[in-house]
Order: sequence, then structure tokens, then C-alpha cells
Amino acid sequence: MKQQIKFPRSQKVYMSGTLYPHIRVGMRKVEQVPGVSFEGEEKILTPNAEVYIYDTSGPFSDPAVDIDLKKGLPRLREEWIVGRGDVERLPKISSEYGRMRRDDATLDSLRFEHIALPYRARKGKAITQMAYAKQGIITPEMEYVAIRENMNCEELGIETYITPEFVRKEIAEGRAVLPANINHPEAEPMIIGRNFLVKINTNIGNSATTSGIDEEVEKAVWSCKWGGDTLMDLSTGANIHETREWIIRNCPVPVGTVPIYQALEKVNGAVEDLTWEIYRDTLIEQCEQGVDYFTIHAGIRRHNVHLADKRLCGIVSRGGSIMSKWCLVHDRESFLYEHFDDICDILAQYDVAVSLGDGLRPGSIRDANDEAQFAELDTMGELVLRAWEKNVQAFIEGPGHVPMHKIKENMERQIEKCHNAPFYTLGPIVTDIAPGYDHITSAIGAAQIGWLGTAMLCYVTPKEHLALPDKEDVRVGVISYKIAAHAADLAKGHPGAQVRDNALSKARYEFRWKDQFDLSLDPERAQSYFRAGHHIDGEYCTMCGPNFCAMRLSRELKSAKKE
Amino acid sequence: MKQQIKFPRSQKVYMSGTLYPHIRVGMRKVEQVPGVSFEGEEKILTPNAEVYIYDTSGPFSDPAVDIDLKKGLPRLREEWIVGRGDVERLPKISSEYGRMRRDDATLDSLRFEHIALPYRARKGKAITQMAYAKQGIITPEMEYVAIRENMNCEELGIETYITPEFVRKEIAEGRAVLPANINHPEAEPMIIGRNFLVKINTNIGNSATTSGIDEEVEKAVWSCKWGGDTLMDLSTGANIHETREWIIRNCPVPVGTVPIYQALEKVNGAVEDLTWEIYRDTLIEQCEQGVDYFTIHAGIRRHNVHLADKRLCGIVSRGGSIMSKWCLVHDRESFLYEHFDDICDILAQYDVAVSLGDGLRPGSIRDANDEAQFAELDTMGELVLRAWEKNVQAFIEGPGHVPMHKIKENMERQIEKCHNAPFYTLGPIVTDIAPGYDHITSAIGAAQIGWLGTAMLCYVTPKEHLALPDKEDVRVGVISYKIAAHAADLAKGHPGAQVRDNALSKARYEFRWKDQFDLSLDPERAQSYFRAGHHIDGEYCTMCGPNFCAMRLSRELKSAKKE
Repeated sequence: MKQQIKFPRSQKVYMSGTLYPHIRVGMRKVEQVPGVSFEGEEKILTPNAEVYIYDTSGPFSDPAVDIDLKKGLPRLREEWIVGRGDVERLPKISSEYGRMRRDDATLDSLRFEHIALPYRARKGKAITQMAYAKQGIITPEMEYVAIRENMNCEELGIETYITPEFVRKEIAEGRAVLPANINHPEAEPMIIGRNFLVKINTNIGNSATTSGIDEEVEKAVWSCKWGGDTLMDLSTGANIHETREWIIRNCPVPVGTVPIYQALEKVNGAVEDLTWEIYRDTLIEQCEQGVDYFTIHAGIRRHNVHLADKRLCGIVSRGGSIMSKWCLVHDRESFLYEHFDDICDILAQYDVAVSLGDGLRPGSIRDANDEAQFAELDTMGELVLRAWEKNVQAFIEGPGHVPMHKIKENMERQIEKCHNAPFYTLGPIVTDIAPGYDHITSAIGAAQIGWLGTAMLCYVTPKEHLALPDKEDVRVGVISYKIAAHAADLAKGHPGAQVRDNALSKARYEFRWKDQFDLSLDPERAQSYFRAGHHIDGEYCTMCGPNFCAMRLSRELKSAKKE
Repeated sequence: MKQQIKFPRSQKVYMSGTLYPHIRVGMRKVEQVPGVSFEGEEKILTPNAEVYIYDTSGPFSDPAVDIDLKKGLPRLREEWIVGRGDVERLPKISSEYGRMRRDDATLDSLRFEHIALPYRARKGKAITQMAYAKQGIITPEMEYVAIRENMNCEELGIETYITPEFVRKEIAEGRAVLPANINHPEAEPMIIGRNFLVKINTNIGNSATTSGIDEEVEKAVWSCKWGGDTLMDLSTGANIHETREWIIRNCPVPVGTVPIYQALEKVNGAVEDLTWEIYRDTLIEQCEQGVDYFTIHAGIRRHNVHLADKRLCGIVSRGGSIMSKWCLVHDRESFLYEHFDDICDILAQYDVAVSLGDGLRPGSIRDANDEAQFAELDTMGELVLRAWEKNVQAFIEGPGHVPMHKIKENMERQIEKCHNAPFYTLGPIVTDIAPGYDHITSAIGAAQIGWLGTAMLCYVTPKEHLALPDKEDVRVGVISYKIAAHAADLAKGHPGAQVRDNALSKARYEFRWKDQFDLSLDPERAQSYFRAGHHIDGEYCTMCGPNFCAMRLSRELKSAKKE
């Protein structure tokens, strides 16, 4: 189970900190060949600068690190966490269910072998990044993301686009989230917020009917290779606990889950049997495994459930439909809403962020921006303030299916009602008529809402609405969303973003084919398509043939005029 | 060489006209199964209405028509054209080159066998749809497109969203184009304009190094199957003349070309040898074959060529680079600009529309919205008025590579400078970093510019920048653009557009899987993805398994509350 990620002519490089000189922020540096021109007979070589690419692949792309999936990744942040002196290592895991799984010998063959005992905040200590930020403390995590976000800026002469202090302020004021469970020290710090690069999330996970642990770990690494910034494990099938351990131990990006899924498995799918106690134990179990953020559908209120009755597609969120059913069966407010402060108290002890799930998101164009959706958004706005009071980092999930002309209202309302907390949307899908191509219907919406201010885009794969994604679907989904996020970064004017576009276009114009491939989001695919075209010569290709190559003609014009 | 297009549970139906009762407008009607519910023990079946889908597949999808590619399609419009009494059948073809190809016995094996002699306007007669429209005449073509555009409106109780008179007015005032060469009577009338459904164009064609006639004809039919509204034959290789004949005779949608490509072949690729006479003969040759619109790069002015020097990627339009080189080599205004009135005089005799080519469109994000691009747009605004004076229908081509925040300016300027002539854009591509996925980078831009008012979107395939598209690329490109166009129709509020989304979403909610597939843009793909997911039961799928199906839970809630 060795694993390595390679990109052509790319080098793993590390930038170190100023406040914290020991931190090492990994980036991918892509070399380019020089441009060639002629002055008369003389061949002139003009060097092309290396391009830095934001790198989510962690140690997998560092040839100096020998990774064994059975042992997990190096624990990058452990020293920083322990060094702050405000956490303690527990003598045993706190969750009853967690202990039960640990002691079940029939699971030995499935189990990750090197499980460490969990950390938790010492009594009375506030250990979340938000707590530090509010106290004016800049953590190594904050400097780390500042360096990451400044990608290519120094080369442009902009040294301090994002400062560590800016990161701190954004976190303190709730506009950004730095997901960083103290029990997931393997994850590299990253930041989710409107004033940073747009991020993307990948969903993986098995269901009752498909796929095993190996396959899910493989998908997780694969997602990090192609650029997934965070990873949600949405498993609902067998051995959720063990699958999650394997994923977290090998995941260099923050991991999210929807704990209600596992809670429901614990009551064998009987929604009415769900209780706060079962859910609470599940939260603790997952906090101590190292999940970095939880989707919690606490925005569902008893009196709002009926609003979905008017819809064409009712409730399409799994968590939303579970909690709605629970509210109706018991005819009372959901335990997620009632115990939201208790939830936050638990999350704060591990620095797990809350992602307020949009249980009433629209599932069709017809249902977009309706009363049900916006009623839930109002509740989320109330909850986010309660989370912040407990120093819990929070963001807000959003739709779903929304036609283009209704996207803007979603963003503006979210900013207003949720007090600038980061928005994290699923697409949105802009038409319902293209199952099999929903990575495209949703990338269209995602690019727009990202431009308008959404901080993180949850990917959608070609299999959405039809089946669970396989590896190829994950790749296509991630690339589609890297496109949407990057297009949004360009439109928002991030100074470092366009460096890569410019370099790739210059390579294209100068017929540096290899550079064009290597700078692209998916060098392997670009090159294989090019090869399939039976390329003939360095200075034109099969698209136009030699006489019709615009770029060749255009370059000839330039040199003709010089003479 | 028989050919038929089939879609599951779809029926070819025809609507007839009111002004012209003999016209028959083909549509695809998709049947749906009834919804099933229970009142106690009793099973209740609720019928679901049939859905009408705009159909670009022409007679290929009519089982009553026996198509032999060797004989070409039925000549639908010939009677209407001849019936107007203002055209004459020529005793021989007028183009010198055309006659030369006709008389070349070595080409016999390649040649389409049933070439008819061409029609041309009688002396002094104005026979374009624009000429009729200006005189207040509603042609059968105009009523035909009105019926087509009203798709699903009658079922919604809106009987006259688009009237034949509205179509006439839009054409008369230049806001819409109905491409309808009198020598392409096989094509079904369609309309391109901001106040109509957004259309998409497919590019096919060989280059010096690839593919033969059979393959191109197959791609043409394939494009019509998936929904291409018009088709451009961009061939630059051998036997352009013969390839085009085969395509036109078998194409139920308007066909466009870029005549300068063939003119350049005639001078063996030596740009400096191009002359007005060669170009003129090419225009006539293609007018008489039946090309419905020509891309003409007459917007390139001698004094503007240098503006592209400042660019990262220079000139990326093939026609643009050819004409720029010609201007520089001869140090004079291009013959396209100088002879623009002569060009219009020729086009008017056959009702060929002019698509003013954007030879200076930006080829990278860095070059978007620059001086070169906008200088050309100003010239186009001047030329479009000259075309209209000659009753030649005209539209304007647009970029290209544009980041999202610069898209709006493109549309607004085009409307202003080009006097409301329809805009026809290539994407735009919103980031340069994803070769291999440019159908997605460009669908993002296309959806936005379509919403803002672009009338027709030129598709981009996954192979863009890398190689010529194969059949699978054509399919993916067309579907990506159907998505963009339809998303724009929804956002613009076309009343009939959302019918299909609503029907598909209702089918999804009611677990009518087959209906969901059949209503989708690509039923085959949707179904094959679904099957790959090892589906188990009618009421859930492998995505969530039985306990986590939100739609099932949501439906249970509704029925629970009824009891």
C-alpha cells in the first residue's frame, strides 16, 4: 500500500514562515522551457519563469517522504498543537461506540493498526482557531494559510496580498474558517472564506450497496491529487467507523462528515429511534477520530417542515429528510436544534467546525429560492451566532438546484442573514434536464456563485442523480470544480490566479506543447487528447493543418514587421 | 448508407400552420408513465402529460421517411421558394471552380450523385427573408419558426408567445436572422435572435491531415441528433467542395462556412496570392451549393492589425490571421472590407446570411476586451448597416477567451455598436488552464453570455486547442452547449423552457427512472451510468441505499401527513 502522486516536470517545494520559521508550506513548482526566436541566423532563447501551483496533494507528492497507507501520514501539526499547552491526551477514547468497535475482534482485519489516543482541550481552555484569533493570537496554522494564499504574488512584486494578521482577523470575525481538528494533525492548514481563493470539496463514501475501504482511501488520495481542498466522507454502509479512520489517517486535507448518517446506522435506519444521546456519542466518536467539520442540519425547525409540501421535489437532502421525519414523528423540535449549544460545547473541545446543513435546499429548478429554503437560512443565521459565542468556527451550506437568474439572491441573502459566515454550496445546478452531465450543469452555477462570494464549492460528478462516483468520476468532478473555482478567482481579481493562465497561453502561442500540458489542470488528459490527434510537427497541429494555423501566421506577422 | 435517429419512447409529431396550413413543423413528443400512489389499499394512477422537445433531427427521426444519404433529404422548402415566383433555376452553375470540379472525372467516385441546378433571384427581385419582412410579408418560413419557438406553450395555456408577425418584425429590424439559402431547401427553418430560444452551432470539418467525407457526414447527422441548431463545415483539407455537397444535401439544419478557407486552398496556402476574384468565385460556388451563412472577416482594417501586437496570444482566428497577413503584405485595406457591398449583392441573390467574423477575438484571458477586439467590433457595426441596406441578414461573431467579470461588457457593447444584430459567440472560455476540458470552461461563459442576450453559442469540444473532435467529442460538445443554451432560456424566462425541467424533476421525485432518462438531454448516457451503479430496487438507488433516500423519506412524510 505505497502511494505517490506525480505531475510531469513538477517539483515539490516548501516555503517557510516568518513568524514561525519552522513551518514548511508545500507547493508545486512547474518548470518551463525557454521560448525560441531568431534574430537573423541567431537563435535567441528567452527563459520562461517557473509557475507555482496551489498544492493539495500533501506529502504524497514529496519523493522524500515514504508513505505507507497502513501507517498513515506524518503528523505535521502535532507539535504545534501540543506546544500550545492547552490540550491533553486522553487515557482512553470517550465514545462508547468507539470503544465497542475497538474491542470487537471480528473487525481486527479491517482496522487501521496505528490508532493514537485522542487529544481534547484541557478543562477551561478555548483551543479553536477562532478562540485564538479573537485573542489576537496568530497561530502557525494562520501563517501557513497566508503563505499558501499568496501563491505567485511575490513573483508579481506583491509581497503581502494576504498577511497572517489578515487571516487572523477574518477568522476572528467569522468571515473565514480554518478547519483544524486537533486529532487530525496530518492535515495541512487551509482556509475557507470569501476573501481567499475559492475552495472545492469532494464527496466520497460507500453506501449500503457498494465499495470497500481500500477503494474509498484510494478515492481520497485521488481527490487530493487533482486538487480537492477538503474531503467529505459520506459513507452510509458497513464499517463506517473503520473506513473513516483509514481515510483521516491518510488525508492531507480537512475531512468532513454528516454524523447523522452514522447515528441512523446505529438505530438500523429507524429514524424515530434516533436520540440526542446516540447522536452525542457519535459526535464525540468522530471528534476524537479527527473529523474537521460536521454537517449538522440544525436549521430544520418543526414548524418549517410543512413548507416543503408545496414543492415539486420535497426534501432532497438526506439529513434534511431524516430530521424532518423525526420532527413529525415525535411532533417536536429536533434534538439538533434544541441541543445546538451542547453540540458547540463538544465541537469546541476539539476545534471541529460546524457546517450548517441545508436540509431544505431546493432539489429542482421549480423549488429554488422558496419559502422553505429561506426559512431555514434565517434559522442558520441565528445558529451561527450561537456557534461563534462558543468559539466554534462555522459555515453555511447552500443549494442545490437554482436557475441562473436566482443565484444572486442566494448569495446576498446568505451574507445578510448569516452575518458574513462563509457560504459552501452544492453547485448550484442550473437546469434539471442533463443527468449524466451534472458536473457541467453545476459547474456553470458554481462558477457564478463563487464569483459572487461563495467560499467553497462542493463538487458534483457526472454520476449525480444516477449512481455513486467511481475514480474517473471523482477526477472529472474535481477538475470541473477546479475550473469553476479558478474562473471565480480570476473574476474576483486574485492577483496570483492569472499567472497560470498567462503562462499557459504564452506556451500555447509559442508552440511549447509540453509546457501547455504541464501547466494545465489535467496534464495527462491534455496530452492524451493531443496524441490522439496524430500531431505532425512542432509548429502546427491536426486541428488546422500547416496553412491554417492562426498562431503561426500571427507570429510570422510580428517578426515580419520587426525586419 | 441508410440512417435513422431514434430516441426512447419518442414520437415524431408535426404541427401545422394557420397562415400556411400545409407547413408541418416536426417536434419530438416524449411519453411518460403515470405516477402511482395509494389511498389505503387502492392504487391511484395519475397521468403525466407528454413533453414536447425542440427537434433538430429533421426527417432522420421520422420513421415514415426513408433516407438514403446518397440521394439526400427531401427538399422541404423548394415549393415555397419556387412558389414565390421571384427566383429562377440557372441553366448551369455560375462558379468557374464549381464547373471545373464538376468536369473532373477523377472526382466521380467522391461526388454526390444527385446535384440539382441552382436557383438564383430573378433580376431586380429581393428574395431574402429580410426583404420580405421589410415589405410586411410573413413567409411560411416565419410561421414555421413561430410554431417551433412556441414549444410547450399551448400546454401551459399560453397560445401565442411568439407570433408569426413578431418573427417578421424581428427579422425586418435586424434583431433576428432566419438563415435560408434558396439552394438548401432541405433545411428546416429556424431563427437566431435575442428574443428567441438560444441556439447552438456545431463545427465539423476535416483538415489537411484528417478524416474523409463519410466521417464528416456522419458527424453532421450526429450533431443534429444531439441538438445542434446549425452546423459549420470548417473543412480545410482535400475535396472541400465535394465534402460540402454531401453535408448540405443531408443536413436538416442551416449550414455555415468560412469561404476564405477554401479560397486559400485554391492558392495553395499562399496568403499573398489571394484576390477578390478568387474569393468572389468561391462565394458564388458556395451560394449555389446551398451554404446558409458565411463567416466573413471584413471587420479587419489595415490600420487596426497592429493593435494585436500588444497581445499575449496575437491573432487566434484563422480567418483573422489570414486577412491580417494579406493587409500587411499588400499594405492595403482588405478586399473583404473594400468589396463588402459587392459581397452583399451576391449573398442577397441567394439569401445567404453574413456572419461577421471576429478575426481579432482574444485568444487568452489576458487579451480579453482589448483595443484590437473592440476596434473590430466598431467596424462590424458599420458593416451590419451596409448588409441590411442590401437586405442581407447579418449577425456578429464574438469571443473567445473572456474572464467572467468581463463578459457583460462584451454583450452590452455588441448590442450598442452593432445595432441589435444577433450576437454569436464562441464560448467564451473563462479560464485558459484546462485544455481537455474546454467544453466546460466555455459552457460556463456561454451560459452567462446567453442569458445576457447572445442569440447563438458556438460549441467547443473537449479537444479544443488539442486536436479535431471525433464523434464522441461532438456529442459531448453539443450536450454541453444544449445545457448552456437551456440554462440561458430558463434565466431569460422563456415560458416553454421549464416544462422539461419540471417534468424530469417530477419523474425523479416519483422514481419514474425511465421517464427521467427519456426526458434528459442524453438518455443513453444517463441510463448507462445508472446501470453501472448496480441499481437494486425501484424506490432507491446505490447512491444512498434504502435508508438514506431523501426523496423516499420526503414522499413518506407527505403521505403520512395526509392520513
